Amino acid sequence: MSFSPLVEKLMESLRVLPGVGPKTAQRMALHLLERDRDGGRRLTEVLGTALERVGYCERCRTLTEEPLCTLCASARRDDSVLCVVESPADQLAIEEAGGYRGRYFVLHGHLSPLDGIGPEDIGLDQLETRVAEDGVEEVILATNPTVEGEATAHYIAAQLETHGVRLSRLAYGVPMGGELEYVDGGTLTRAFSGRLPFRGE
Amino acid sequence: MSFSPLVEKLMESLRVLPGVGPKTAQRMALHLLERDRDGGRRLTEVLGTALERVGYCERCRTLTEEPLCTLCASARRDDSVLCVVESPADQLAIEEAGGYRGRYFVLHGHLSPLDGIGPEDIGLDQLETRVAEDGVEEVILATNPTVEGEATAHYIAAQLETHGVRLSRLAYGVPMGGELEYVDGGTLTRAFSGRLPFRGE
Ligand SMILES: [Zn+2]
Ligand SMILES: [Zn+2]
Repeated sequence: MSFSPLVEKLMESLRVLPGVGPKTAQRMALHLLERDRDGGRRLTEVLGTALERVGYCERCRTLTEEPLCTLCASARRDDSVLCVVESPADQLAIEEAGGYRGRYFVLHGHLSPLDGIGPEDIGLDQLETRVAEDGVEEVILATNPTVEGEATAHYIAAQLETHGVRLSRLAYGVPMGGELEYVDGGTLTRAFSGRLPFRGE
Repeated sequence: MSFSPLVEKLMESLRVLPGVGPKTAQRMALHLLERDRDGGRRLTEVLGTALERVGYCERCRTLTEEPLCTLCASARRDDSVLCVVESPADQLAIEEAGGYRGRYFVLHGHLSPLDGIGPEDIGLDQLETRVAEDGVEEVILATNPTVEGEATAHYIAAQLETHGVRLSRLAYGVPMGGELEYVDGGTLTRAFSGRLPFRGE
């Protein structure tokens, strides 16, 4: 015996959510159908709208339903410093740590040749144009301190070499092998103030 | 700084799911938007359809998109025994255990006067009609062994008293394969008072 086809299909669909296995999917489906249909309908509606309308900011590529995100639209940020991060979650973590007043560029991932993810897929052509045209003086390479993040930072450093910008990399306190998103604010702030010139060795 | 209004709204909507806090909702929203939009669209579609079409089986009240669930539609079950459970998940657990060949009735909860949940809300009028008209000889009260489940079982027992059916309750005791050390006191006490003659077979 199992649940009805449509209920089973709902459980299966819920497994697209990260960290949701069969037992959790079952609990979620039954909760929505038995106890919170209004909440379920609201989720359907908001998720549908978000998937349809949320795209990338034209300037920094973070997620937004507007052409420009609020950070890019703000006149109060320093155009001469550009921080390159892998994801919107990393960007948020840095903003929440406070202290950084420059701009951002969001890659949505890192180079991964084996998965067919090349420079254009993470917006590196757009990044180069931006650096060439927008008076950027320093690029902070804040990709994750993982093998892939390091490789991506090195690639960007080589790409931007001829543009005469200062390159730096987050330093102090960022634990090797960790992910920026989960680093606490104090550590992130120290990593910013202690950033070092990047040597694309 | 936070994410864009629509992304924030998506995170908030995901929190209708049981066990999903702010950090998990953020991870889920970003995963869907950045890495699995197709999966997200499928979820929207299936959830919308399920909420619209999945209702209660006319006979046993379990969740189904058909007028009758497969168990009620089956000709191979024993109509004379009816097992009353609180939820479709309980029904599935009993089916997966195997052995039971009778029918079911699903309450979708238990009596809870303080929350305004009375007999009609959990289908007890329908249960009484079923017992009166369908040749049921035994009703197994398989509500949860909690205060509310017990109270609900007692209420049903009183309600069905005049219909001349046999009433039974699942046996309480030490779970098979469990270790006494980890069994709670209430269960142990019930297991003692319900002890049976030992047959060293
Ligand atoms: Zn932007
Ligand atoms: Zn049924």
